[in-house]
Amino acid sequence: MAKIAHVSPLAPAGFPDLPAIAGVRFASVEAGVRYQGRTDVMLAVMDPGTSVAGVFTRSATRSAPVLDCQDKIGGASDGPAAILVNSGNANAFTGHYGQTSVAEVTRAVSEVTGVPVQRVFTSSTGVIGEPLPHERILAKLDTLNGALRPDALKEAAEAIMTTDTFPKGASAQVEIGGKTVSVSGIAKGSGMIAPDMATMLVYIFTDARVEQGALQQMLGELTERTFNCITVDSDTSTSDTLLLCATGASGVDATGNADFAAALEGVMLDLAQQVVKDGEGATKFVEIRITGAASDADAKVHGLAIANSPLVKTAIAGEDPNWGRVVMAIGKSGAAADRDKLSISFGDILVAENGWVSPTYREEDAAAYMKGQELVIAVDLGLGAGKATVWTCDLTHGYIEINADYRS
Amino acid sequence: MAKIAHVSPLAPAGFPDLPAIAGVRFASVEAGVRYQGRTDVMLAVMDPGTSVAGVFTRSATRSAPVLDCQDKIGGASDGPAAILVNSGNANAFTGHYGQTSVAEVTRAVSEVTGVPVQRVFTSSTGVIGEPLPHERILAKLDTLNGALRPDALKEAAEAIMTTDTFPKGASAQVEIGGKTVSVSGIAKGSGMIAPDMATMLVYIFTDARVEQGALQQMLGELTERTFNCITVDSDTSTSDTLLLCATGASGVDATGNADFAAALEGVMLDLAQQVVKDGEGATKFVEIRITGAASDADAKVHGLAIANSPLVKTAIAGEDPNWGRVVMAIGKSGAAADRDKLSISFGDILVAENGWVSPTYREEDAAAYMKGQELVIAVDLGLGAGKATVWTCDLTHGYIEINADYRS
Repeated sequence: MAKIAHVSPLAPAGFPDLPAIAGVRFASVEAGVRYQGRTDVMLAVMDPGTSVAGVFTRSATRSAPVLDCQDKIGGASDGPAAILVNSGNANAFTGHYGQTSVAEVTRAVSEVTGVPVQRVFTSSTGVIGEPLPHERILAKLDTLNGALRPDALKEAAEAIMTTDTFPKGASAQVEIGGKTVSVSGIAKGSGMIAPDMATMLVYIFTDARVEQGALQQMLGELTERTFNCITVDSDTSTSDTLLLCATGASGVDATGNADFAAALEGVMLDLAQQVVKDGEGATKFVEIRITGAASDADAKVHGLAIANSPLVKTAIAGEDPNWGRVVMAIGKSGAAADRDKLSISFGDILVAENGWVSPTYREEDAAAYMKGQELVIAVDLGLGAGKATVWTCDLTHGYIEINADYRS
Repeated sequence: MAKIAHVSPLAPAGFPDLPAIAGVRFASVEAGVRYQGRTDVMLAVMDPGTSVAGVFTRSATRSAPVLDCQDKIGGASDGPAAILVNSGNANAFTGHYGQTSVAEVTRAVSEVTGVPVQRVFTSSTGVIGEPLPHERILAKLDTLNGALRPDALKEAAEAIMTTDTFPKGASAQVEIGGKTVSVSGIAKGSGMIAPDMATMLVYIFTDARVEQGALQQMLGELTERTFNCITVDSDTSTSDTLLLCATGASGVDATGNADFAAALEGVMLDLAQQVVKDGEGATKFVEIRITGAASDADAKVHGLAIANSPLVKTAIAGEDPNWGRVVMAIGKSGAAADRDKLSISFGDILVAENGWVSPTYREEDAAAYMKGQELVIAVDLGLGAGKATVWTCDLTHGYIEINADYRS
């Protein structure tokens, strides 16, 4: 684990007050999977009637826990459900032993909690390629089960951290038919962040009732606009997992409700942006707004090309308004662009238009703007109505420090 | 320009002795385009009968000189030819003014040298988005023309450097029908290196005779296996240009000659590898050999995914045999892979096979291997006969230092 212990300068002031979600209880414990002196396993148990939806990494080398979750999502959804997550070891590229570990853990969780094994979901995050010492987790299951309580979400968020410098949580409440429905979620993620389908580890809970098929479809659509629009380092994890659990305990059916979808999207976007703000070594949070592209898909390709460019990211770290590198990234993205129709702004400052620097542009204005901690780079392609917004951070010495000796 | 002045630890011992190429003369000069106290413009003039082939960046925002070269390649090829290159300013994203600069420079070179303007090729490399002060170049053309001589290739290689820490040259000689044919080339490139079609600035000269169409086809094929197989930072330049000039002065027709093609490929590969060895901040040179892929194209996708992964590149910088990150990069590449059929080696050390760490693997062996300056990462996908080899360097604090304040 990295030696960098200070908190990201982009971190929120503190962990938010998350409303407890009726029908869900949490517990965390120190199991010593890899880290010492901190919690590293969390358990969540959901009451009967909970729908569970999930999206996962599209990596061809995805981890054993991801493969197990994918098998289970969409299955029977009446009984209770459980999620167990460990940090310190990803149980990825661990061959058949990895699958055995998942089987052992899910079977034991089922025995201790009474949740059917087909409804026990697990995730593992940390180093790749080392066997998961699952017996250390099994030894703590009774303790975890005895400690379950509804208001322990912050502790759960802390237990799943790896190189994260702060725990990540977000919530929303929405009125439906005169009743209040709550959504609370937690996430971890800091490096190996370039989600493809889902991202990192994210767990979101709501007391709304939504049938599993509808929940799954909603989650997929919202993921495209939230977690799939962030990148720290262009590297997609083997373990990305996002689980959404709807307990129904509020008695409110939110299927197809637009206000509920908007509240859920807000929680997802908040968590996604917190992951970027905890990007390894990050000192700047950058929003990249693409408009005027030939299609929405093209806009996202351009946005991610800019967000993933090491030269753009180092220029931002150096507070250099080097818009030529933005032009370069657009040019290499492979999506449609016309040099002479492009316009580029940094914040409110129009930098380039008509294939050249804007006549109103003054470098000192842009240099002053780049000193800010939250930046907006806006690009209009001048081609069509396609648009997308993506979020990233800068590339600094901190990233090199963290990753040149992550395992040592 | 970057403040980092020391020479790359991966640099060759010295600039090679390049044979002069009959039919080509060179000159370099200090024009003060941007840099002070060094040469920054080079001129090459080729005798009548020279065939010129070229490959160029596929960037959608390619520079004015690239657009002009692309218009001219493949045109009439009887008269003399000329190449003028400046460093310090890329004349990219400079709108119509950029095209005017190219027109002014090529017209003036034509007047001074007597080369038809349709055979005057130019390149510009350096900062993007600032107008090229072409009058500084025009003021030096008489001096350049008066200084032309056959043995000034090293000085030409020096004049085109930007963040390069050493000039790059390579040569080969081959016997054809009892006569000796020579190939000499120079290159520049250090950052913004992820060639797509061609790369950086590369100029190769031979006294062989090859008809333009055949020369162009040979150049395209060899580029795919050489310059298009290297990456420093995944960022594709707006200015990538590779020009190959065959003067025919040896009187030897090398069209379709396999020995000549092999010699030319050797020069191209040598120059391409020198560019990687001068990668911004590089301390390790890494060869990534992919075999057993479903196709050659898949093999290259996997190779470049590994070579471009910031997590793989920082692990190499940290001398950490973190093969889990190689697994991650293969998983995210999008090309076909099966976790349980993969095998991974670092040098001669088998690291992983059958979806898990190899039973013979000892971390201390791999850690010792990673301390070397030239590393080989070999991956066999176990799926088919597809193969590719790509070359890259590590990602270090030096890269951040160079690029966080390139313009300041």
